Amino acid sequence: MELWYTEEHTNNARFSMKVKEHLFSGQSDFQKVDVLDTYEFGKVLTIDGLVMITEKDEFIYHDMITHVAMATNPNIKRVLVIGGGDGGTVRELTRYKDIEHIDMVEIDSLVVEVSKKFIPLTASKLDDKRVNLHIDDGIKFVENKEKEYDLIIVDSTDPIGPGEGLFTTEFYKNCYNALTENGILVNQNESPYYEKDAKAMIRSTGKLSKIFPISEVYQYNIPTYPSGHWLFGFASKVLHPIKDFKPEVWESLGLKTKYYNTNLHVGAFALPTYVREMIDSAKK
Amino acid sequence: MELWYTEEHTNNARFSMKVKEHLFSGQSDFQKVDVLDTYEFGKVLTIDGLVMITEKDEFIYHDMITHVAMATNPNIKRVLVIGGGDGGTVRELTRYKDIEHIDMVEIDSLVVEVSKKFIPLTASKLDDKRVNLHIDDGIKFVENKEKEYDLIIVDSTDPIGPGEGLFTTEFYKNCYNALTENGILVNQNESPYYEKDAKAMIRSTGKLSKIFPISEVYQYNIPTYPSGHWLFGFASKVLHPIKDFKPEVWESLGLKTKYYNTNLHVGAFALPTYVREMIDSAKK
Repeated sequence: MELWYTEEHTNNARFSMKVKEHLFSGQSDFQKVDVLDTYEFGKVLTIDGLVMITEKDEFIYHDMITHVAMATNPNIKRVLVIGGGDGGTVRELTRYKDIEHIDMVEIDSLVVEVSKKFIPLTASKLDDKRVNLHIDDGIKFVENKEKEYDLIIVDSTDPIGPGEGLFTTEFYKNCYNALTENGILVNQNESPYYEKDAKAMIRSTGKLSKIFPISEVYQYNIPTYPSGHWLFGFASKVLHPIKDFKPEVWESLGLKTKYYNTNLHVGAFALPTYVREMIDSAKK
Repeated sequence: MELWYTEEHTNNARFSMKVKEHLFSGQSDFQKVDVLDTYEFGKVLTIDGLVMITEKDEFIYHDMITHVAMATNPNIKRVLVIGGGDGGTVRELTRYKDIEHIDMVEIDSLVVEVSKKFIPLTASKLDDKRVNLHIDDGIKFVENKEKEYDLIIVDSTDPIGPGEGLFTTEFYKNCYNALTENGILVNQNESPYYEKDAKAMIRSTGKLSKIFPISEVYQYNIPTYPSGHWLFGFASKVLHPIKDFKPEVWESLGLKTKYYNTNLHVGAFALPTYVREMIDSAKK
């Protein structure tokens, strides 16, 4: 017998992984959570039937959601991570000795429990002393916070289900207020290739650009997400991810990374023309 | 009834497209050629069950195989295209007024015929006056040529079947001899993500680096190829794709492109660390 997991990237395109074993399936108050052991991608965490992370390529996602901001501002001390229950974003953050405090706000305790049990590759640093895990709604958590964080990372699912509120103008305004003067917001910002993802990206980019003086988008290749061509948003009050980027400062930290490097940092902001045009139109 | 085309990206990963109509299926002396009309990707050309081009994203492949070299050396007059039976590479080349002569050598007349009939989007410029189409073996065609071309583009399939000989040291040496002093070789150079593709890429990169003084690799995102993360090789005798690149010269041509632009040109050479390491080890 062959077991395959199939994800609908659109109604008309599907991606399938051959499965060794279906390790876990559970329903929380918010969503369906599954863990698969696959032949090509190692352990795979899915939420509501969509791949969140795989052991084979999670390093791409977590390098790019973390190090671009950390290399733009080497003085980041206090970080808020919203979502990211698998722990991979926090794992990368804890590699920076100068970070003093990390609040991680994940709405769904089941995602954290399951990741700790089945995917220690990403969840291994959730018990770092500096990490404060809150099982709570990130949208509410960030309300009424003022200048508390140097970096907010929105490590969210797609804008459906519990992730939807993390793509709204109100939420982005609260993030702006919660950030210090040199604060940076990095958000999971969908993909330009399939129509539905591109529309979501254009909407969130438009909203962010009306709140933050600096609002850019950068790309990465993650083969297990639909199309493989994905984007993060970089929004900030003052710091520019290229103009204020000092590669030598990040390099002096001596961190080894499998995807991120300081050349790629700059290259990731060089978008294909059709993506550039989407973003320019979103900002109007 | 639903019709789906499924491609095995590895034994353990598959990609599927919903099909409106199977427009053509034929067997040449070399390979099996099919054309599908799909809901998400428009017309799709496959060879031996592997996607060659789709109407939705062929612009990514053809922009990147053509414009990087053309923008590095604005004085290219004579071009040799090996493979590329769909015509997309020639279509992009014919947009340059200064190109005087294009030899296109495709081994399989069926690919050309089928592309002309079903996919005019790519095949529309094969009758340009400057294009000389040779139905011939590219490996033999390039033997004993001396300093005839300013640019050779190897627009090949994977290194199996008729494409295999286009990944050999002997072929690359013949290309070197066939190039002028400022000559550039661009080759379809597989992908770093799945093991089989990565091994092929490392082998060809190693061979090229032992023949050409300058040998680099650049990346692009093409969602309908396995993993979506693909590479071209850039090998040359003198010209460096970044150091000798003059963006303002290419921009002065006023060509509109949907993927390529002069920022992306530079960014495409900024490879992820794990890819950079593969290439550095290949060059040793």
